[in-house]
Amino acid sequence: MRIQAPRGFTLSAVRAGIKRTGKPDLGIIVADEPCPYAIAFTANHVKAAPILWNLENLDPKVVRAVLVNSGNANAGTGRQGVQACNRVADRLAAQIGMPKSQVVLASTGIIGNPLPVKKFTDAFPALIRNLSSTGGNGFSRAIMTTDTRPKVVREQVDLSGRPASVLGFAKGAGMISPRLMPHATMLSFILTDAALPTRSLRQALSKGIEASFNRITVDGDMSTNDTVVLIASGRVPVSPRDTGRITSTVMAVCRRLATAIVADGEGATKFVTVSVRGASSDRQAGVLARAVANSLLVKTALYGGDPNWGRILAALGSTGIPINPSHVIIRISGEILFSRERVMPGNVATRTRIKMHRRSIPIDIVVGGGDGSYMIHTTDLSRRYVTINAAYE
Amino acid sequence: MRIQAPRGFTLSAVRAGIKRTGKPDLGIIVADEPCPYAIAFTANHVKAAPILWNLENLDPKVVRAVLVNSGNANAGTGRQGVQACNRVADRLAAQIGMPKSQVVLASTGIIGNPLPVKKFTDAFPALIRNLSSTGGNGFSRAIMTTDTRPKVVREQVDLSGRPASVLGFAKGAGMISPRLMPHATMLSFILTDAALPTRSLRQALSKGIEASFNRITVDGDMSTNDTVVLIASGRVPVSPRDTGRITSTVMAVCRRLATAIVADGEGATKFVTVSVRGASSDRQAGVLARAVANSLLVKTALYGGDPNWGRILAALGSTGIPINPSHVIIRISGEILFSRERVMPGNVATRTRIKMHRRSIPIDIVVGGGDGSYMIHTTDLSRRYVTINAAYE
Repeated sequence: MRIQAPRGFTLSAVRAGIKRTGKPDLGIIVADEPCPYAIAFTANHVKAAPILWNLENLDPKVVRAVLVNSGNANAGTGRQGVQACNRVADRLAAQIGMPKSQVVLASTGIIGNPLPVKKFTDAFPALIRNLSSTGGNGFSRAIMTTDTRPKVVREQVDLSGRPASVLGFAKGAGMISPRLMPHATMLSFILTDAALPTRSLRQALSKGIEASFNRITVDGDMSTNDTVVLIASGRVPVSPRDTGRITSTVMAVCRRLATAIVADGEGATKFVTVSVRGASSDRQAGVLARAVANSLLVKTALYGGDPNWGRILAALGSTGIPINPSHVIIRISGEILFSRERVMPGNVATRTRIKMHRRSIPIDIVVGGGDGSYMIHTTDLSRRYVTINAAYE
Repeated sequence: MRIQAPRGFTLSAVRAGIKRTGKPDLGIIVADEPCPYAIAFTANHVKAAPILWNLENLDPKVVRAVLVNSGNANAGTGRQGVQACNRVADRLAAQIGMPKSQVVLASTGIIGNPLPVKKFTDAFPALIRNLSSTGGNGFSRAIMTTDTRPKVVREQVDLSGRPASVLGFAKGAGMISPRLMPHATMLSFILTDAALPTRSLRQALSKGIEASFNRITVDGDMSTNDTVVLIASGRVPVSPRDTGRITSTVMAVCRRLATAIVADGEGATKFVTVSVRGASSDRQAGVLARAVANSLLVKTALYGGDPNWGRILAALGSTGIPINPSHVIIRISGEILFSRERVMPGNVATRTRIKMHRRSIPIDIVVGGGDGSYMIHTTDLSRRYVTINAAYE
């Protein structure tokens, strides 16, 4: 697959020897000019060194490059980790010819190992030499860890007669339960050639994240490295009446990337969408949906193809939010299995079991008559998930 | 093993055909006289029918019998479930010759099936006929579900020269993350012949639960059926200076039963104790300890025998409670792996890996200089856990 970057961007990737496997592990995005951008980081109180470095050093107005490595998260590495970031950013900035405050850093991989600075700097000449508007394919693979496939989404949108594009990359399969501030170890890099100013980019990213990355969970474990960045090269003018369209396109890219992460979740055999309606508030609906999505008993039942509404009901009751079973309706794959304390006959369960052989399983829950609703995507919990994560590093 | 009941109690068990496997599934405890008692139920907002029935019907002062079935949780069964409880209690009370308000009901097993009332009533004559002061062995097996072994703890205590005993039974291996009110699908039944009044029983149970059942988690899933009851036959007088000793004995029995549940947790290969010290409050320490104990990535690392302190650090940062890695110390099996952002050399990790072959793994965490501390027991997450819970019913 040939991935064409939005105008104004080039990408590249190399094998720098950071991953023990020798697979591609260092990628870069470089914009022709400094670009307005928006960025969001994990809400985890333990933040990896690249996030701390970004927070301390990034130019608040413009960036020109994004340097991403896999194989080493540079988390839990303290001051030493931040110093390594600084050396890497310094050297890259000098070689490209720009201030280091315009380099966004992101890392993913094993926690607790110091960043191998020399492997980075040794790889920079080849990394810069390979930069190309079709370098997205290599880039999308260099950011993978336990991902089984690259996650790339491209959308085109017509802005008053001119075609603009939004290209998004994401990685992530485990330690996925992002809560991003301002409002991921998932990493996502979204590029557009549309001329959106910083304020619009921040709004688009904030809305996009809330409706996408913040609504996925694989294992309920929040990463120390989650980072999402949106950068606009400004090559395609955006008139006021086009702003809504380009914002929607950014949101669509976020949603497609987020669902791609869940679909590739560690050991996942099912793509599960939990919807809760009728709660007193969206916030309460969110807590309930998350409790169902993160329940080990619900996830193992999904793996077994078992329409076990009882485990869903128990999870709903466990959050501290008042739940009255006589107001609860539970649908799995479109079949009502429990309705206001009436259990459906056995043939409904049998029908549901057959439908649960499909990869995608919707769980729709009504908890009452309130206006609050929420939707979250998750995976089942398989023996393979355990195998992947029990292996030494 | 011959289990001698405290004076004033007889027990019995039968195969009533509630479990498909045909194993013992109905047990009963009967006191010679009505006894003061203390009881605690799950904090889950979805409460099973037997709990709802107990709440509506139990005499607040005294009880005489406890009827427990396995194989059917009678949860999610609405008004029909509560009516089934009423019929069962009515019949049992009539056959023993006591008010039904003195019968405590408890159920565990599959959620969502109406209670088979006739199987209960058909079994009552044999159940009552078999009552004996040595019936605890059968009783301890009749309450098992996925438990691999019965959980019985007996302690003797000398009260001013007279021997008193505390006998506790527990069941539970999955859906274990109890939070009991007043202050368990684990079920626990604790009997003593010490003459404690209701108020002392409530204090002893409340303290006992807080230091035991509320400090265990297998899968983070809170049950709809958790119930703990403490009953005192009053055969051994308790002088004011003996109250402390008998209360401590009840607490010790609670702790031993709680740890027995974790040791027999579904698929568990490890017994893990997570301690957090140095938090701003015990409550915050509890949230942090629970986040580590329930992290899938921490639990799978424990299964793999991997001293992955990075996953512990990420879990600590994820709760919303401010955590500063430069104040954090993480010890696994007594070895310091991470100390205030300094990662220990590789030989420490190697030494820890060897120690992690032991069944019992302590994780000791310091998060700062505060006075708050908390301890919780948990299991690892094995492939077998997934197999057990993915199987149809």
